[in-house]
Amino acid sequence: MKRSIEDTPIVFIGAGNLATNLAKALYRKGFRIVQVYSRTEESARILADAVEAEFTTDLGEVVTNAQLYIVSLTDSAFIQLLPQIAARKEGALLVHTAGSIPMDVWQGATSRYGVLYPMQTFSKLQDTDFSQIPFFIEACTVEDAEFLKKIASILSQKVYDSTSEQRRSLHLAAVFTCNFTNHMYALAAELLQKYHLPFDTMLPLIDETSHKVHTLQPKEAQTGPALRCDQNVIDSHLAMLADEPQMQEIYRLLSEDIHRLVSED
Amino acid sequence: MKRSIEDTPIVFIGAGNLATNLAKALYRKGFRIVQVYSRTEESARILADAVEAEFTTDLGEVVTNAQLYIVSLTDSAFIQLLPQIAARKEGALLVHTAGSIPMDVWQGATSRYGVLYPMQTFSKLQDTDFSQIPFFIEACTVEDAEFLKKIASILSQKVYDSTSEQRRSLHLAAVFTCNFTNHMYALAAELLQKYHLPFDTMLPLIDETSHKVHTLQPKEAQTGPALRCDQNVIDSHLAMLADEPQMQEIYRLLSEDIHRLVSED
Repeated sequence: MKRSIEDTPIVFIGAGNLATNLAKALYRKGFRIVQVYSRTEESARILADAVEAEFTTDLGEVVTNAQLYIVSLTDSAFIQLLPQIAARKEGALLVHTAGSIPMDVWQGATSRYGVLYPMQTFSKLQDTDFSQIPFFIEACTVEDAEFLKKIASILSQKVYDSTSEQRRSLHLAAVFTCNFTNHMYALAAELLQKYHLPFDTMLPLIDETSHKVHTLQPKEAQTGPALRCDQNVIDSHLAMLADEPQMQEIYRLLSEDIHRLVSED
Repeated sequence: MKRSIEDTPIVFIGAGNLATNLAKALYRKGFRIVQVYSRTEESARILADAVEAEFTTDLGEVVTNAQLYIVSLTDSAFIQLLPQIAARKEGALLVHTAGSIPMDVWQGATSRYGVLYPMQTFSKLQDTDFSQIPFFIEACTVEDAEFLKKIASILSQKVYDSTSEQRRSLHLAAVFTCNFTNHMYALAAELLQKYHLPFDTMLPLIDETSHKVHTLQPKEAQTGPALRCDQNVIDSHLAMLADEPQMQEIYRLLSEDIHRLVSED
């Protein structure tokens, strides 16, 4: 009987937001997750239960006969635990999922390694639809790269080769488009709460702002007082933020920088 | 014959992004735009043509017998031109569309006045669907407020009363959710261009980031190196931005501030 790629025994090292969503998505597509490791038992058990896998909180008990190990830890934990993770897994393919860590970090610790980086923001609270998420793939050999691309293609229509350098750049850009953007929402929520106004009044504006850059360059899509150099409005906003020096500084810096981009034209 | 509200003769003072989209939306709903004023002839003519109106670049030639004047200029131009705009229009209702300007600015210049503030980001390049856009209404009398709400309700399902104070707060929050968010996209686009990577790889992330805050509070939705206090990644990103001191400062300040919000919990 020919075995399909979904039969590849997979181990997840890590049970955070990304690992949780990726493991569940693979499980839903029929992949076999054999084990989940996490430092905390609760995280390990919850994810393991969701994907019908075993779990462990001891790296020494991670099975050594899986074919693919997907490592999704915080960057610092990964670097620290790498030797233990790689130990006794010669022959298996070991990949990490981090935008910011080069593939070479594996070098010397094991022989078959790579990167499987889905560029998205994940929450355990929400299941992710992977079909439109870009996956960036890197591996030591063409064969392993093809293997990873095959797996990613089962989840997503957007699978790309990427060097470590490109992935690092994408990850930096992603911090701006996702984490910093979300922080703008968080600051607006903080302001609205202070004024006893509901955050959901902002949703049509949030949606339109993200929608516009599908067809316009962000620079072309810009509007507002900073773009118009409407100093009256800017000064009045800065005055409203007098009690929030950190937010005031962000307002000032971003308004100046919007102006910088316009002036470069 | 009973006249319907759409027969109200409307004049637009201003032909910018907001005026253009609002006038076109009213026109499509059957409203009668009789005249468009803009300082620049081209803007005035293009909008007037689109809504079958007359146009002028001379405030002295604005007709005085319309029933509703919708003033949508930059804040500073509006304040400067207000006396001329209001002159000889006693009996008509004059409204402005600015989030940041209190209704009282009209006081003394004319007797019937108000505010019609659609909170959205507009571009002349893209027609706007007004159906989900929140309109914030204020007027001197209950009758005029009802009249403005009736008009807004023909365009949108979301029409609210709002004081000048509330509107000012909404506008400040909107600068964060829209203009500053769009600037995060613009900075990402700048970085990606530098690295010869296409901006559209970011679109699924942008969409998911805006989508998430429909069901999660922005604070709960946050992810990334600043939230995780992943100093390795933060330092590596700051190093990548060494040639872009302004962007580096933004990265540093926003990462600190993400940390501030988390620490407050």
